Amino acid sequence: MLAFLTTDAAVPPALLDRALREVVDRTFNAITVDGECSTNDTALLLASGASGVEIDDASYGWLVEGLEAVARELALAIVRGGEGATKLVAVRVTGADSRPDAVRAARTIANSPLVKTALHGADPNWGRLVSATGRSGARFVLERASVEVGPFVLFRCGQPFDDQAPAAAEYLRLAELDVHVDLGTGGPGEAVVWTCDLSAEYVRINGEYRT
Amino acid sequence: MLAFLTTDAAVPPALLDRALREVVDRTFNAITVDGECSTNDTALLLASGASGVEIDDASYGWLVEGLEAVARELALAIVRGGEGATKLVAVRVTGADSRPDAVRAARTIANSPLVKTALHGADPNWGRLVSATGRSGARFVLERASVEVGPFVLFRCGQPFDDQAPAAAEYLRLAELDVHVDLGTGGPGEAVVWTCDLSAEYVRINGEYRT
Repeated sequence: MLAFLTTDAAVPPALLDRALREVVDRTFNAITVDGECSTNDTALLLASGASGVEIDDASYGWLVEGLEAVARELALAIVRGGEGATKLVAVRVTGADSRPDAVRAARTIANSPLVKTALHGADPNWGRLVSATGRSGARFVLERASVEVGPFVLFRCGQPFDDQAPAAAEYLRLAELDVHVDLGTGGPGEAVVWTCDLSAEYVRINGEYRT
Repeated sequence: MLAFLTTDAAVPPALLDRALREVVDRTFNAITVDGECSTNDTALLLASGASGVEIDDASYGWLVEGLEAVARELALAIVRGGEGATKLVAVRVTGADSRPDAVRAARTIANSPLVKTALHGADPNWGRLVSATGRSGARFVLERASVEVGPFVLFRCGQPFDDQAPAAAEYLRLAELDVHVDLGTGGPGEAVVWTCDLSAEYVRINGEYRT
């Protein structure tokens, strides 16, 4: 992945650096296809100043907003283009002790082969989501945790909501999905990681590839 | 996974506990199918003493040897029986700074979807092995590292050995494989993790499963 981002704003180097790190954390570093890293992943941000518009601390938010819209679009295109991908899935984790804990849980869910095959098969499998969350290392309070797909609650406070399963299965046939797990700690940690489903086509593409 | 191990030896509880932990570390905790954990993974060891044979520090090695042979056979049966698995692969990592670093590298390689699909397709893809090792977090000195499959060197001291690739591809068609990565640090850390390949059948089984 080689991402070259440019702006004609005039931005002091320290602000430009801060904006790129902040945005990359929520975009390019918040996506996964299969958990693998490219050996040349790069995101560059260049500011020419040609427009004469100067960015300072007061207007920094506008820079971040514009940069994030572009970076998110590019990052999600990587996931949509993942080998064999048929679905784009936003995995949102809330109620974590901390942001790193939320990222850990979201990333483990997003890379879980059992979660990704369940999403591929449109199975509202809250057990696989809870199990992946449990092995992520993030602190997790099962009795207060919840699992939702789109508007459907599959699991809450230690109890499955099986009557929601048929509607949830229908929802999971969509090409763009939201999965939400609350870790139940009551903490402020949140994160979103975007992923795709795992299909037999992924195996075919990567298994038939020849060096 | 529920493993119940028994012996009719008489073993002091502390020695029995030590033997189980030592053996589980190299067997049940050294296998993976897809990186997922069962929610009920359990290994129990019971000693009845019925034989009257007493185990002490001097004979501890015999206990471990017998226990490890049984536990390894059971653990490898789990991998052989992995969903859609067609190959049993021993991933051996040497030359790590420490045992935890070696385990980290071996586990990352063993769970890498790109490595597992390459093994499925019998492609001698040293790049995927090096890449997974690189992202494992284990210290890795590329210029002194090496990658072998069975008796074939694919990569050594920063250089690919492409003339070995055809023979290595032939070797990779076998049902039981050895993959060896030396991290090149010169350190004493070693580990073996057993895994299986990733096939389209894995996706079918886990994607068609219904809760």
